[in-house]
Amino acid sequence: MAVSELRVIGLSGFPEVSRGANLAALIAQSIWNANLEVKDKDIFVVAQKIVSKAEGQVLKLADVEPSAKAQRWARDHGKDARLVEVVLRESNRVLRMERGLLIVETQHGFICANAGVDTSNIASGQVTLLPKDSDRSAAQIRQDLEREFGVRLALIVSDTFGRPWREGLVNVALGVSGMTPFIDYRGQKDCFGGELHATQMAVADQLASTAELVMGKTKGVPVALIRGFDYPEGPGEGRQILRSKEKDLFR
Amino acid sequence: MAVSELRVIGLSGFPEVSRGANLAALIAQSIWNANLEVKDKDIFVVAQKIVSKAEGQVLKLADVEPSAKAQRWARDHGKDARLVEVVLRESNRVLRMERGLLIVETQHGFICANAGVDTSNIASGQVTLLPKDSDRSAAQIRQDLEREFGVRLALIVSDTFGRPWREGLVNVALGVSGMTPFIDYRGQKDCFGGELHATQMAVADQLASTAELVMGKTKGVPVALIRGFDYPEGPGEGRQILRSKEKDLFR
Repeated sequence: MAVSELRVIGLSGFPEVSRGANLAALIAQSIWNANLEVKDKDIFVVAQKIVSKAEGQVLKLADVEPSAKAQRWARDHGKDARLVEVVLRESNRVLRMERGLLIVETQHGFICANAGVDTSNIASGQVTLLPKDSDRSAAQIRQDLEREFGVRLALIVSDTFGRPWREGLVNVALGVSGMTPFIDYRGQKDCFGGELHATQMAVADQLASTAELVMGKTKGVPVALIRGFDYPEGPGEGRQILRSKEKDLFR
Repeated sequence: MAVSELRVIGLSGFPEVSRGANLAALIAQSIWNANLEVKDKDIFVVAQKIVSKAEGQVLKLADVEPSAKAQRWARDHGKDARLVEVVLRESNRVLRMERGLLIVETQHGFICANAGVDTSNIASGQVTLLPKDSDRSAAQIRQDLEREFGVRLALIVSDTFGRPWREGLVNVALGVSGMTPFIDYRGQKDCFGGELHATQMAVADQLASTAELVMGKTKGVPVALIRGFDYPEGPGEGRQILRSKEKDLFR
């Protein structure tokens, strides 16, 4: 019996990533160190954090001058006004600003807490911002890796987001390259010959969540390799996953 | 170098599941047919659809008498009034009833489209309802499989849900048994020795999404086996993932 199987491999041994680092070269080195091969249609999932660091999307909080609005809200909620200021600067608009939570739409269109501005896994007093264009970042790293290994790849830049209605965070795809982020079943037949309606799976998000299981938060595994998933090749981008405000029932 | 690795194996060859079917026995048969072993700490993810069928959570639309409300809304949106009636019966309350979409809180507390009532992968004219108690279902199948194979397991009953703000669907955990649905990093140190805040990963949901990548919608793979994830053992339940209305910023 044919058994479908995925392998999900966590890549480690990365040095601290600083501005200008060549992520594809670091990923290739990690692959070689682990005696792994890279195969056609492998998928790499790369944590946003190292992409942001390589692209210099890092701020020192000491350099940030908080606005009166940021100061007021920070004081009322026991937050760092400089951090609040950075979050507001990174935001197109604020969806919720209550109970100490700042849920915003970022400049890029992502809806998440704190505009993706993050104080974890970075030196004290610094914060990382999201990459300026995660799709462009994904495309760049993918093309570099494809050249290095001579194969076709897909690459996802992932981050950790909360969601309404359900507790806990999950990883999602910010940037996508080399695949379409969805598998579309609309018009296909189910096992009874019935036509499937409205079933478009966000496989890029599911791949990001899959990768998180080997990444963790404390393990020093910023990249995962997923093998065995027959993803839909194409010129997809992570921004396609963002629902427009007009289509959204919950904005 | 130590490499962390997950394997995700799709199990197939299931017969059509009908009321009273012993799912653990069917899963064991699929395992043996594929010449697989079951190991300590393996995770099984089981599609809600076969759980519902085994538990008789199936209705014939011909037996449903739609209310005036269901008839009115169905007519206005080109829907089957009997299907709308079933959705409303399965719901505690309706969050959105517009643009042909019915987003509800189910009797069980899940927030999803159509209360999880589904016309796909079932004989024409019938619909499946969600299991009455997915945590109980998960516990039952897990215990049966643990007895059969003499190992400790975790088991997740999964379904496919939409979400606000992002296009496409992802699989989530309805029922969970043998593990806590979260990995909690609060108070742990990141790679810089900084303390992690508010980072509680919904790993049960991520495991459900992982499994979906080998399940698909048309492949006849209703169960996946995930090996290599060091999940937090404990008396967890899927209902812990449901955010209370009081804590939810988007209800």
